[in-house]
Amino acid sequence: MEKHLTDRIVLSYREGEWVEKDDQIALEKPLTIRVNHTEFATLVCTPDHLEDMVTGFLASEGVIRSYGDIEEMLFNESQGIVNVKANVHIPLTSETYTKRVIGSCCGKSRHFYLQSDSRTARTIMKAPKLTAQECLGNMMALQSQSTTFKTTGGVHNAAIFIDGELLASRTDIGRHNALDKLYGYVLRQHLKPSDLSVAFSGRISSEVVIKLSKMGIGVLLSKSAPTELAIQLAEDLNITTVGFIRNGGFNVYTKPERIER
Amino acid sequence: MEKHLTDRIVLSYREGEWVEKDDQIALEKPLTIRVNHTEFATLVCTPDHLEDMVTGFLASEGVIRSYGDIEEMLFNESQGIVNVKANVHIPLTSETYTKRVIGSCCGKSRHFYLQSDSRTARTIMKAPKLTAQECLGNMMALQSQSTTFKTTGGVHNAAIFIDGELLASRTDIGRHNALDKLYGYVLRQHLKPSDLSVAFSGRISSEVVIKLSKMGIGVLLSKSAPTELAIQLAEDLNITTVGFIRNGGFNVYTKPERIER
Repeated sequence: MEKHLTDRIVLSYREGEWVEKDDQIALEKPLTIRVNHTEFATLVCTPDHLEDMVTGFLASEGVIRSYGDIEEMLFNESQGIVNVKANVHIPLTSETYTKRVIGSCCGKSRHFYLQSDSRTARTIMKAPKLTAQECLGNMMALQSQSTTFKTTGGVHNAAIFIDGELLASRTDIGRHNALDKLYGYVLRQHLKPSDLSVAFSGRISSEVVIKLSKMGIGVLLSKSAPTELAIQLAEDLNITTVGFIRNGGFNVYTKPERIER
Repeated sequence: MEKHLTDRIVLSYREGEWVEKDDQIALEKPLTIRVNHTEFATLVCTPDHLEDMVTGFLASEGVIRSYGDIEEMLFNESQGIVNVKANVHIPLTSETYTKRVIGSCCGKSRHFYLQSDSRTARTIMKAPKLTAQECLGNMMALQSQSTTFKTTGGVHNAAIFIDGELLASRTDIGRHNALDKLYGYVLRQHLKPSDLSVAFSGRISSEVVIKLSKMGIGVLLSKSAPTELAIQLAEDLNITTVGFIRNGGFNVYTKPERIER
């Protein structure tokens, strides 16, 4: 059994018949992140790859800038707390973390709405080129990785690729967490973001595009569709978005020059 | 065209052929909520039923206790801001809003992790009984309501029912928002929560169960599965959870006494 699943007896109905049957249920746990003795945030997540998730999350929020900024990470699993000792780059108040930046109506800043985004999101300058076959193949590779998705439904999966090869795949009940787990892996392995692309099982929302820009990755593949705001952000941030990858086809929504024709 | 969709030309690939085609894209907008001149939160949402969403959100967070606590709500659509004048019941700082409550290890409080949850979540004392046919029928009614879901994929849908009849259905790119839009409707219409059940298109996470308990509604139907933490919370809060409603069958995870056999 996978670490993020557990067994349960459930009452099942079908065509007038009731039976008790064994079912597999996805785990979900709260994790409170304390940085230098200050409570910073609580994430509710699938409990695996937590060190990567915390690293990716803190980098996303601009608290740390590299893996080297983390001096120590101590998990208290029963309490759902991690105590991080780190070299931090912003004040650790939730005020700076949840406030919206309402900018002037022009220029690239217009769609950013949280201070933490404007701190760490950046325009992508360099990214790989993919063939149509890589777009289809990477999505198939992502889907064949995750058994949790098939057995319990509704979990988000994400994977990073280099030259058509899957480097790491992560699963979480939260879309952010799945991507933060990958981001932490990229930082810990000192990978060059400009070599990488990401495949994601869920919808391309504005938050997913912003996360990619924070990771420095310029190609995003998805089984699902983007929103209008995600498309506008991807244009601004120079990110290629490919969606509805299914049944041998897909749509390119932004920056099609990175998909070979 | 629905209010929450827009048209776009996208580049489409299928079996070696590239074509430009017209596509429908879901809208997504940030909305910053200011209460009595204090910035309280920013939600990213599908831009419809915003008054209900803001009402439901503020009630969820314990800021207001009833629809009557809202004196005025002024929307600035171009800036994505709503100014609310209200009779408030908690201090309006984001500190109280994001902090985790780490309780003692016993009793019903053990799974609550945010202060705002412990303020407004409550054990359900009274809820309707549903037949198996109602479970199946309500989910079918939910799905036939939403065209956005079919055309763009990935949007969350939720609806409330009384005696097998659909009262209101709401759509959003965010799972919380879809439920907050319903909660606002319930408050505005002065409906009795103990008469109602909810059908939801997405996964039953802990946050969805907590939202139901805040709404005072004790029966939750879903197309997807619950997490283990959601099941534990639903047991504690006395909420019936029915999941995997598809192909004429379903599973009952908690409090099966409210589903007639």
